[in-house]
Amino acid sequence: MKKHQKKMFITIEGIEGAGKSCQIEHIKNQFEGLNYQVVMTREPGGTSLGEDLRTLLLGHKHHNMHSDTELLLMFAARAQHLQEVIIPALNAGKVVICDRFTDATYAYQGGGRGISSQQIKIMEDWVQKGLKPDLTLLFDLPVKMGLQRAAKRAAADRIESEKIEFFEKVRMAYLALAKNDPRFKVIDASQPLEMVTKTIQQHIITFIKN
Amino acid sequence: MKKHQKKMFITIEGIEGAGKSCQIEHIKNQFEGLNYQVVMTREPGGTSLGEDLRTLLLGHKHHNMHSDTELLLMFAARAQHLQEVIIPALNAGKVVICDRFTDATYAYQGGGRGISSQQIKIMEDWVQKGLKPDLTLLFDLPVKMGLQRAAKRAAADRIESEKIEFFEKVRMAYLALAKNDPRFKVIDASQPLEMVTKTIQQHIITFIKN
Repeated sequence: MKKHQKKMFITIEGIEGAGKSCQIEHIKNQFEGLNYQVVMTREPGGTSLGEDLRTLLLGHKHHNMHSDTELLLMFAARAQHLQEVIIPALNAGKVVICDRFTDATYAYQGGGRGISSQQIKIMEDWVQKGLKPDLTLLFDLPVKMGLQRAAKRAAADRIESEKIEFFEKVRMAYLALAKNDPRFKVIDASQPLEMVTKTIQQHIITFIKN
Repeated sequence: MKKHQKKMFITIEGIEGAGKSCQIEHIKNQFEGLNYQVVMTREPGGTSLGEDLRTLLLGHKHHNMHSDTELLLMFAARAQHLQEVIIPALNAGKVVICDRFTDATYAYQGGGRGISSQQIKIMEDWVQKGLKPDLTLLFDLPVKMGLQRAAKRAAADRIESEKIEFFEKVRMAYLALAKNDPRFKVIDASQPLEMVTKTIQQHIITFIKN
């Protein structure tokens, strides 16, 4: 197995129905084909405690959850995830591919729920102490198309049950983040699957080379 | 029922086996005897979500919980507790009596686990936005005595299972907090129960008058 010098913390972001899960499998295969060791993980979750918190966050038991609470639980799960999974894997020279990370917090709890970016940044600095993803693939598509696709899958979770306006705000927040940071590559997820896969493969090749 | 102008947010603090639960009942009776409406609550917990978080925090499932995670979960439960229970009750002119609050975080996660006070204060400011207890009764007693008493009750939870040195640090942190803030009244909990009850009654009378 290749043990590389370059830190490779890759996050996959986007609203519901953007086709992330399908493409993540391809990304994993691409890295493994190049002989890299890959850790696939997700947020909220990625650890035993994090998955328990995911159940509280996304289940339908706690519909009166305050937005501050939601944000703190996201970062609690993230703190555990970083310490238990992400940091050890990166230190061991592995590629970490994470389905959603802190950008999702800016998009959902920030853009969607209206918590200010400054407030989220206080938490980010506290929990991550400077650690950030090296490459972020943002799967972007019109909200309606995303929700139509998502509706064909499982029943909506607590956050997926929000109104279309919520997801419009989430999408806009994601695009605003991407505009200001070159680590983002925006993927047009409304294209046919094979086109999306090819575009991503090209981004990964460029990422590895640079 | 009396609806008072003075904010009455009273917290009860102390290490294991200090006899808090027994005395809290007397405090409630004292206020109700004076015709106040009382809300009794506890941390971590106090809401449906908070009690689920309490199970994660104190249960034995997650022994590898990182101290950052523990702190964030305490504040997540607290954010919900404040919004759902404490702030509405205070706004309605009720007396809120809470078994442990943020001082416990400074004592256990700060003193016990070693998280710096500055780091905890960032969370406190973020979640509480200036709201603090008006009176804090700190039940103090030698750690050994407390642990002996606690051992006679239920089996120890995840945090109660720590070593005696941990609780010595917790006790010292509590006493340091009390030294710097006149809202604290330190109760010698090694005294006979009736003496403790009387001391507290006197503190409550003084608190209500001032």
